[in-house]
Amino acid sequence: MSSSDSYSRLSGQFTKVSSPSPHVALVQLARNPVNAFHEPFWTELGNVFDAISNEPSIRAVVLASALPKLFCAGIDLAALNFTEEVDAARKALELQKTITSFQHSISALERCRYPVIVATHGVAYGLSIDIIAACDVRYTASNAIFSIKEVDVGLAADIGTLARTPKITGNQSLVNELAFTGRNFSAAEAEKMGLVSRVVEGGRDEVVAAALETAKLIAEKSPIAVLGTKHLLQHARDHSVQENLQYTVVWNSAMLQTQDMAETMQAMQRKTKPKFANLGPKL
Amino acid sequence: MSSSDSYSRLSGQFTKVSSPSPHVALVQLARNPVNAFHEPFWTELGNVFDAISNEPSIRAVVLASALPKLFCAGIDLAALNFTEEVDAARKALELQKTITSFQHSISALERCRYPVIVATHGVAYGLSIDIIAACDVRYTASNAIFSIKEVDVGLAADIGTLARTPKITGNQSLVNELAFTGRNFSAAEAEKMGLVSRVVEGGRDEVVAAALETAKLIAEKSPIAVLGTKHLLQHARDHSVQENLQYTVVWNSAMLQTQDMAETMQAMQRKTKPKFANLGPKL
Amino acid sequence: MSSSDSYSRLSGQFTKVSSPSPHVALVQLARNPVNAFHEPFWTELGNVFDAISNEPSIRAVVLASALPKLFCAGIDLAALNFTEEVDAARKALELQKTITSFQHSISALERCRYPVIVATHGVAYGLSIDIIAACDVRYTASNAIFSIKEVDVGLAADIGTLARTPKITGNQSLVNELAFTGRNFSAAEAEKMGLVSRVVEGGRDEVVAAALETAKLIAEKSPIAVLGTKHLLQHARDHSVQENLQYTVVWNSAMLQTQDMAETMQAMQRKTKPKFANLGPKL
Amino acid sequence: MSSSDSYSRLSGQFTKVSSPSPHVALVQLARNPVNAFHEPFWTELGNVFDAISNEPSIRAVVLASALPKLFCAGIDLAALNFTEEVDAARKALELQKTITSFQHSISALERCRYPVIVATHGVAYGLSIDIIAACDVRYTASNAIFSIKEVDVGLAADIGTLARTPKITGNQSLVNELAFTGRNFSAAEAEKMGLVSRVVEGGRDEVVAAALETAKLIAEKSPIAVLGTKHLLQHARDHSVQENLQYTVVWNSAMLQTQDMAETMQAMQRKTKPKFANLGPKL
Amino acid sequence: MSSSDSYSRLSGQFTKVSSPSPHVALVQLARNPVNAFHEPFWTELGNVFDAISNEPSIRAVVLASALPKLFCAGIDLAALNFTEEVDAARKALELQKTITSFQHSISALERCRYPVIVATHGVAYGLSIDIIAACDVRYTASNAIFSIKEVDVGLAADIGTLARTPKITGNQSLVNELAFTGRNFSAAEAEKMGLVSRVVEGGRDEVVAAALETAKLIAEKSPIAVLGTKHLLQHARDHSVQENLQYTVVWNSAMLQTQDMAETMQAMQRKTKPKFANLGPKL
Amino acid sequence: MSSSDSYSRLSGQFTKVSSPSPHVALVQLARNPVNAFHEPFWTELGNVFDAISNEPSIRAVVLASALPKLFCAGIDLAALNFTEEVDAARKALELQKTITSFQHSISALERCRYPVIVATHGVAYGLSIDIIAACDVRYTASNAIFSIKEVDVGLAADIGTLARTPKITGNQSLVNELAFTGRNFSAAEAEKMGLVSRVVEGGRDEVVAAALETAKLIAEKSPIAVLGTKHLLQHARDHSVQENLQYTVVWNSAMLQTQDMAETMQAMQRKTKPKFANLGPKL
Repeated sequence: MSSSDSYSRLSGQFTKVSSPSPHVALVQLARNPVNAFHEPFWTELGNVFDAISNEPSIRAVVLASALPKLFCAGIDLAALNFTEEVDAARKALELQKTITSFQHSISALERCRYPVIVATHGVAYGLSIDIIAACDVRYTASNAIFSIKEVDVGLAADIGTLARTPKITGNQSLVNELAFTGRNFSAAEAEKMGLVSRVVEGGRDEVVAAALETAKLIAEKSPIAVLGTKHLLQHARDHSVQENLQYTVVWNSAMLQTQDMAETMQAMQRKTKPKFANLGPKL
Repeated sequence: MSSSDSYSRLSGQFTKVSSPSPHVALVQLARNPVNAFHEPFWTELGNVFDAISNEPSIRAVVLASALPKLFCAGIDLAALNFTEEVDAARKALELQKTITSFQHSISALERCRYPVIVATHGVAYGLSIDIIAACDVRYTASNAIFSIKEVDVGLAADIGTLARTPKITGNQSLVNELAFTGRNFSAAEAEKMGLVSRVVEGGRDEVVAAALETAKLIAEKSPIAVLGTKHLLQHARDHSVQENLQYTVVWNSAMLQTQDMAETMQAMQRKTKPKFANLGPKL
Repeated sequence: MSSSDSYSRLSGQFTKVSSPSPHVALVQLARNPVNAFHEPFWTELGNVFDAISNEPSIRAVVLASALPKLFCAGIDLAALNFTEEVDAARKALELQKTITSFQHSISALERCRYPVIVATHGVAYGLSIDIIAACDVRYTASNAIFSIKEVDVGLAADIGTLARTPKITGNQSLVNELAFTGRNFSAAEAEKMGLVSRVVEGGRDEVVAAALETAKLIAEKSPIAVLGTKHLLQHARDHSVQENLQYTVVWNSAMLQTQDMAETMQAMQRKTKPKFANLGPKL
Repeated sequence: MSSSDSYSRLSGQFTKVSSPSPHVALVQLARNPVNAFHEPFWTELGNVFDAISNEPSIRAVVLASALPKLFCAGIDLAALNFTEEVDAARKALELQKTITSFQHSISALERCRYPVIVATHGVAYGLSIDIIAACDVRYTASNAIFSIKEVDVGLAADIGTLARTPKITGNQSLVNELAFTGRNFSAAEAEKMGLVSRVVEGGRDEVVAAALETAKLIAEKSPIAVLGTKHLLQHARDHSVQENLQYTVVWNSAMLQTQDMAETMQAMQRKTKPKFANLGPKL
Repeated sequence: MSSSDSYSRLSGQFTKVSSPSPHVALVQLARNPVNAFHEPFWTELGNVFDAISNEPSIRAVVLASALPKLFCAGIDLAALNFTEEVDAARKALELQKTITSFQHSISALERCRYPVIVATHGVAYGLSIDIIAACDVRYTASNAIFSIKEVDVGLAADIGTLARTPKITGNQSLVNELAFTGRNFSAAEAEKMGLVSRVVEGGRDEVVAAALETAKLIAEKSPIAVLGTKHLLQHARDHSVQENLQYTVVWNSAMLQTQDMAETMQAMQRKTKPKFANLGPKL
Repeated sequence: MSSSDSYSRLSGQFTKVSSPSPHVALVQLARNPVNAFHEPFWTELGNVFDAISNEPSIRAVVLASALPKLFCAGIDLAALNFTEEVDAARKALELQKTITSFQHSISALERCRYPVIVATHGVAYGLSIDIIAACDVRYTASNAIFSIKEVDVGLAADIGTLARTPKITGNQSLVNELAFTGRNFSAAEAEKMGLVSRVVEGGRDEVVAAALETAKLIAEKSPIAVLGTKHLLQHARDHSVQENLQYTVVWNSAMLQTQDMAETMQAMQRKTKPKFANLGPKL
């Protein structure tokens, strides 16, 4: 029913899903010519990731661009028109609805119960940063050029870049400068500030290969353990240490009752790799 | 009325303000011989930055020392005397008032609605770290020597160093060591822990030039976009991701109704730099 | 009563305490052959650190392994058996009690009022990361090999690794990858992500020597200042900047009434090192 | 398109919607014989309220039971079966999904942008309390009998009773007692603890009439003002005073730019009732 | 210098301050004909209360209206004009500045270090509720008529009513209804929801007399104890129990070192009333 | 081993424990002549309740005074002496330790996993309020006289009265007045503000009988359900609604896997009272 090669059925119009190895899904952004995002694209991306999150056999996800030259040029500026003629308060309510829905789509990457590894290359501007900030593990090709572009179209980034970068990086001064200036920055600067954890020499193919390798490794682990690890790390980011420790107690009081722990012990004695059941169909 | 060259009128006795380029204010600490801070100096610094924050034509600020050899030697120890003979509880209330007021002055750097880029060189001890931690972007000359000096006078730093460094850097172990030992550290160590984002080879002139260059770049952007970016990044630092995303929705529901977005679009088509109106007089 | 050389009386069965220099305690993990932790060991470690925290003459602590080849191999898997036959809810309550108590023991490192410098070498797996994350300053020997091993036994780390690493490091992507994969990582990677602040060339002896040097330096400072610095840095990690600043006002309104400030001033004039009274016996 | 009498098109199988007066929607629970909730019913209730929230002409909502004898007997116990045979951890994940979805449905009452007035009568057990706690204004007929019934089926109420009652009432001791014992309580006790604000002598018809009267009054007000009031009161419940005040500043900086304020001023001068435009179609 | 009868020097144009009994200040709103608030009035009210908070001999404050017929009719609608013609974003920034400043003035009642008892009578509409919600103790004459009037001019109350009433009352349903409808409510309803704690039969003179009696009682207590009690109760409102308990520990670690405790003990033995020193001049 | 009548073994010197009915513990304060609390008494009270919390057969607890005339006169003033001659900072650290430990003892009432019903009569001053505020259900005899007495000895209450009363009552104005004035208040006022939920006509015997009746009722319920209800209500008090709902999901994902739910269903069919297993020995 959920044999690994069937993930392509989760594909959309601009978002291609495939199954490069067992329990691994590869999601590729594929809207020519530059993966510019308009509302149908971002809505679809959110839906695809919500569907992935409901797929009990998946254990790790890689997000990349299908386009050989670049990751994503950012938002399709045509997407920003507001036709309605209403007073400024009613217009504000309308904008609230639009932004909330847009954020909800991109946050599907964070909401996805399985680890998402993003692999960037070439141009990665504007919304690209909102997208990668919502992923769990960030790899980049050495040829990538990044930019927090929003300031250049007259707005403060509102789909996650400003919300997440202060928490996931280690040099707030550099994050601030890049957000204020919108200037390009290289893979090396991205690594310096802690935005990416690996710079892979080369372009799209090299970085995707590296990401898939890591995904494969994760897919061999207990899905209960990996899912819990992602959930608790995200909780820790947004709570005090004491609050997170107490929450972890409650979480693990159910999760330690898994068969996966016994399976790992037995596999050690068997000297084979452990084999884990998929998560339930109603996950 | 607010022509750019008039910012010198914002100067105080120890704090010199000038206008090196359009929409940019340069603030220089100028209390001989070592920029030691006593109460009149820190009160003035706070007032100057509150005035800058109310100046609708300013778009970026650089903070530096006017003294060629050093940034700031820290607090003027004579400022710490407590003459009142009262019981320990009443003395504590008095101290609360003094510390709160001192913190309020230095937090004016953070409160300032425009980005503040600090450029340090030479000795930068004690209060210097509280000051730079309250700025948005931190550059240093390679000749700088830093120290979280407070422990050497018998107290825990209370004007912002301990409050802000854990959130703006990426190596808490190093921050802790430096705060416990009060030992000197170099520009390289400051960069390693993520306290500064750029080390400029040389001294005062070189680092100030680099900071002004960045300020100039920021001053060309939409003031609505830049102001919002600073505001939302600061909010993100102190709230959960979900809380910040929701706040951003409300913030941008007003701010996206700016003319600056249309101006950037039109400027792209005109192939000229966009020109933005100043913020309103009652900002 | 509290002469420095008496700290050995605080030793336990698996935890050796000694007094390498005035006001410094060295705590060594000493359970052959690999410092595997079972409940008696972790309970004892917590008790030892709570006792240290109550010892008014101690001013800095170093935590290391007594075993020449490694720091700690992690949890003793035999410690994880749950014999009780009850329903899943009652079992969950039992697990909650066990995990809470385990967390409480390891959090004694964080709770300890004096700075704790950890010095790792060789294998440092699983619980090792929970332990070092609860320390204040992290040094490692260049020969160390780390692993967030929990995922390999089917569980999400619940004794502090996931709670603390997002807050004390600067590359969340790398932390996430290491937690999802359980793969080994080197001292260099630990430094890259900001988990350790110093890599000492060599093994156990070299890193312990460096840690003791720093501890000695801290032990010369005002204990009121150092204790307050640790307390406020920890508070800052878990609160907003504004909340921490206000708390700091109240804390320092008592702590600035110490004699240690006068002593530091007088020592400057005397041109000798200041000498500070120990903290009170009922600390 | 949105003429008031068309709200019946929002009805579902168990949930009847009608339009008793302009801009007012009346929602009635209608599953014979006792309005017991199974998954289709609660899912539908959530969907109906999400649809109401998207209806730009609605300004106030009344929730009541269509059954003359009672409000709701609680959950349909048959809804609680868990067929899947999996380990306790996987079962816990499945339960998490179910409870989250259930909560999401009932929270639609709170999420609804317009005020929801609930009118209870007769038996109001178990889930009834979760439902009324998620409404904004609570009226009851004098013949009502309430019970926080969950403890009698072996579980802690998890759909909102325990989350909301401590914040919306004024006698925690009584709330606690009722939650621990599951005993029946009267309209008078509900009023004493502050759970309801009005006890209407009689039964269903009397209390529904009173609720519709209040709804009609609300429907005459500016929709921008009422929607903002609900939003800010809910925000206040869950944030500190300072946090809420600051959020309110940002919210009202857009909302005060409404035409509704000018309309109210002009209506005062005209000595007629003000007339307000509906909220926009994309609200 | 601080002899009790001199408090009249703190009076402003619309705000009369007097000294009815030792250590007690009586503040009266006095802008004919209906105490309508425009910007100069609310700014002055804030300044008066900040000055009171800095007056070391004051120990309790009563706030009332000087007008025999009413407390306050609310905001002067003429105060709400916005002349500037700018884009909606710049206008929003201007509004943010205005609202923030307005809130800051009214929050001076809460910020005041001494207890503030408010005594209302007659009409108390709109801003009246924001004002009384910011006081510590609320008495009303039986002839009072209240209204959360803001909804009737097209806006959500933003000066504190919505922020504070959910936390200081015990019937959220009634608060919500009153905020949605703007309808009048009586002293009895105010008491029912917990907004006031005492209804004094009569009008202005009776309720002011009762408030002054309570103020006199408070003024006999240790100022250290009373000031700390107000501070800690306010902190408790906005923090978790655990957070408040820990903060209280730090606060009282200074405050228990007061002479006032010894004085109370000695006075018990002397069988006289204790006499407490004023707070220090730099409070 | 845990037969109900053995709870007397949990008694201490000043704290008598008995077993009036199955699964119910009655704890009586018994230090003649007025239950004044000194350190040994409050430490013992904390220890007794921690022991009760570890007793798997207990399901409900009643706390009362053994003295026929009164509940408790408050703290033994002799307990407040501070002999140590140290500087104010070191003294503050000592005080922090003492207050923290005192709070920890009284918070054992809140920490206790089973509901605690307090029954007061006669004089209930000072620490009495801290104690009853930490209980779950509060009954009082009509002859009770309460006072938040701390202000009369020169200090702000720091053992829980100020931390908890703002959250568990519904008239903050009355709470504030009582805390500022220290005046006596009656059972009727306690009920008016929502501090107690039942006033039992009479004295000690009558109120204890009523409390035991409620305890007996609670003791018949599923211990998993009751324990979870207390835990989640406490969590709700200190977290936002959204935060609590999410936590509840995780908590109940384990707790719904109890046999107690099946037992309640079967008992309904059997038409007998359900019988529940005790909680496990390692609870």
